[in-house]
Amino acid sequence: MKTQLESAREGIVTKELRIVADAENIPVDVLIKKVADGSVVIPANINHKNLVPCGIGQGLRTKINANIGTSSDYGDVDTELAKLKTVIEYKADAVMDLSTGGDIDAIRKKIIEACPIVIGSVPIYQAAVQKMANYEAVVDMTEDDLFYAIEAHCKDGMDFITVHCGLTQRAIALLKQQKRVTDIVSRGGAFLTGWMLHNQKENPLYEHYDRLLEIAHRYDVTLSLGDGLRPGCTADATDRAQIEELVTLGELVHRAREAGVQTMVEGPGHVPLNQIAANMQLQKTICENAPFYVLGPLVTDIAAGYDHITGAIGGAIAATQGASFLCYVTPAEHLGLPDIEDVKNGIIASRIAAHAADIANGIPGAAEQDLRMSVARKNLDWEGQKKECIDPIRFDAVRKNKGTDTEACSMCGKYCAMKIVEKELGLTHHGRC
Amino acid sequence: MKTQLESAREGIVTKELRIVADAENIPVDVLIKKVADGSVVIPANINHKNLVPCGIGQGLRTKINANIGTSSDYGDVDTELAKLKTVIEYKADAVMDLSTGGDIDAIRKKIIEACPIVIGSVPIYQAAVQKMANYEAVVDMTEDDLFYAIEAHCKDGMDFITVHCGLTQRAIALLKQQKRVTDIVSRGGAFLTGWMLHNQKENPLYEHYDRLLEIAHRYDVTLSLGDGLRPGCTADATDRAQIEELVTLGELVHRAREAGVQTMVEGPGHVPLNQIAANMQLQKTICENAPFYVLGPLVTDIAAGYDHITGAIGGAIAATQGASFLCYVTPAEHLGLPDIEDVKNGIIASRIAAHAADIANGIPGAAEQDLRMSVARKNLDWEGQKKECIDPIRFDAVRKNKGTDTEACSMCGKYCAMKIVEKELGLTHHGRC
Repeated sequence: MKTQLESAREGIVTKELRIVADAENIPVDVLIKKVADGSVVIPANINHKNLVPCGIGQGLRTKINANIGTSSDYGDVDTELAKLKTVIEYKADAVMDLSTGGDIDAIRKKIIEACPIVIGSVPIYQAAVQKMANYEAVVDMTEDDLFYAIEAHCKDGMDFITVHCGLTQRAIALLKQQKRVTDIVSRGGAFLTGWMLHNQKENPLYEHYDRLLEIAHRYDVTLSLGDGLRPGCTADATDRAQIEELVTLGELVHRAREAGVQTMVEGPGHVPLNQIAANMQLQKTICENAPFYVLGPLVTDIAAGYDHITGAIGGAIAATQGASFLCYVTPAEHLGLPDIEDVKNGIIASRIAAHAADIANGIPGAAEQDLRMSVARKNLDWEGQKKECIDPIRFDAVRKNKGTDTEACSMCGKYCAMKIVEKELGLTHHGRC
Repeated sequence: MKTQLESAREGIVTKELRIVADAENIPVDVLIKKVADGSVVIPANINHKNLVPCGIGQGLRTKINANIGTSSDYGDVDTELAKLKTVIEYKADAVMDLSTGGDIDAIRKKIIEACPIVIGSVPIYQAAVQKMANYEAVVDMTEDDLFYAIEAHCKDGMDFITVHCGLTQRAIALLKQQKRVTDIVSRGGAFLTGWMLHNQKENPLYEHYDRLLEIAHRYDVTLSLGDGLRPGCTADATDRAQIEELVTLGELVHRAREAGVQTMVEGPGHVPLNQIAANMQLQKTICENAPFYVLGPLVTDIAAGYDHITGAIGGAIAATQGASFLCYVTPAEHLGLPDIEDVKNGIIASRIAAHAADIANGIPGAAEQDLRMSVARKNLDWEGQKKECIDPIRFDAVRKNKGTDTEACSMCGKYCAMKIVEKELGLTHHGRC
């Protein structure tokens, strides 16, 4: 079995590579070089049979991820399948199943079965949660428990898995020394930190990284190297603990590539706007251009209830500065679990951020869509606008609600300035006055 | 009568200047220099009796504006007064009354009377609309009609007025030559262009700028030099017509300052993310650091229904690159007139953008609020979070709706990682898992 990375290095054009090249409208021989050097990944588990492959990385359209999954209080798989349907309908490029409640194995299998887009997970959640479900402590989790969960997720078809391999004893020591405001906000990072401090051992995902690489290689699972020490508030951003972990992740990207395993790197988190560019540039050099998968970043801490907007601001900037993959943030962030409406709003906000960056980055097809939209707007062509806009359902709903679902100009009533200009002077007219 | 600008130049500390210095927590002697050199304005019409003054410009907190106003189809003043109440409750720093329907004079007086925040208007709307109401064409508007409206708005207490003085015959010629996708999207710009082309005359606001300065000086009205040729789609951004108008606005800033009149400059509009910094830097040098008042900018054209998000992305970047004043964009933009819910969402999105920029710009007090929020979050102090968050009403509503309005951690159910870390290892706990 060859991974996508190994195939690309040998010049073999896989079916997946061809599909991605077509979807991105770039030549196969350009794409294959990016996959070969690791600046693009094609997360495509050999056991994810219904996957439509998608590339993530430099020079491609910015991708976005939506999280779903049961929790201990909400363990119903049908709710999550309904969310998955929404995720697909609203055009997220990837989804993560973060289930921690109900029959986690069965839920995962059902979700993968129903999922034609790239799918990922965080296996340590299951390993830790199952310990607790057995009335044991997370700190009593064995290394085998952890690798057992990882293997199960890989075998079932996860295209990528988040593994917090860079969270070392040294990084934790730096974290303790510098006294953060919010310490650790990554759930996986917290589980591991608890385990490492209690057991006074190094992170098994770091220490036994070769074992992880062997499993990932077997199924061609892309490792998404997690940032267990990502800042949980803007005051904690870009500190020594975060950057120490990033340095280790860079080391691990290098080792994964040597083993023929594809990698992405996960990034912050809460980051002030003026620190985003530096964070993206650091990741590029330290992690040898591995695709950067960012959570937000959230550019302020005070917008609970509106963090999809905070994340869209940070995500748009991040994606113009080097991030390739944006994890959505929903309006429910910091307040509760997202419902379907939150999922929709989170996806749309992330897609706006990604698309704004794609225009700025000159990604083929991006500005062209805006041009078609603008021409339709100018021509008062509402069907044309609906076709090009980011959410046709909402487009119709708002127009209906406003009573502007007519052929008329929607904003100014009878004093439409464009109409006047058009009528009197032959300049063209459009929909926004 | 001395304007704020003239007083500052003479070293006179006005009551308004002192209030602004206190509100911004900066020394009076620092602020007075900024007002004297025009990099900060204090829009405070001598006839706006109930105004709590507010400064706009370099080194101050980024300010945001919300638009309200009747249209030909919706002429009810009570609706607009209700919107004004929302605008104040949701903490916009300024409001513009763009009324074009009903008894415009009476509505304006009532809105000003009820308005303790900075208020502005676009007098040419009224001048043009009243022509049409009399079954005449906009192009038959006389120069006196226009100046009559301007004088009426100034006399009634408008703190700033938008005047499209830089829209010259040369700029229109450039616009025609280069063939835009959406030509002109500024309503005032369109009225003037129609008038200028039909009458084959120069823009009266440019040609008779001294008359305008005399009126503005009399009431200390700040001129907000409008961008009649702002791009209406990203494809039209930063073109010759737009920049020609900006150059003229810079010339007019200089002349206004010589006449002791305060000025701001209005800016785009639809601008790709990677062109925002250049636009802001251009304005700073061309317009001698006059406060830049931007509409958005919108970083993509395709997000109708979500343009408050598109505008927040652009606004946050603009405000870190030199813009001082953000005009809100509501979710109704491009689709219809905003209702109260749209007004709320528009204001909050703009405030998030402004605040994110203030953190990045190191504005006193900005990061401190985030720190208080983050400490409250860490301590599961929900009352503390509510106090610091951008929208306490929504904060409560979401928590209630999610059933997370308890003392418990809101995200992870019983598998809260922070609790585990805290319990087993003495690290602190916070609200977000």
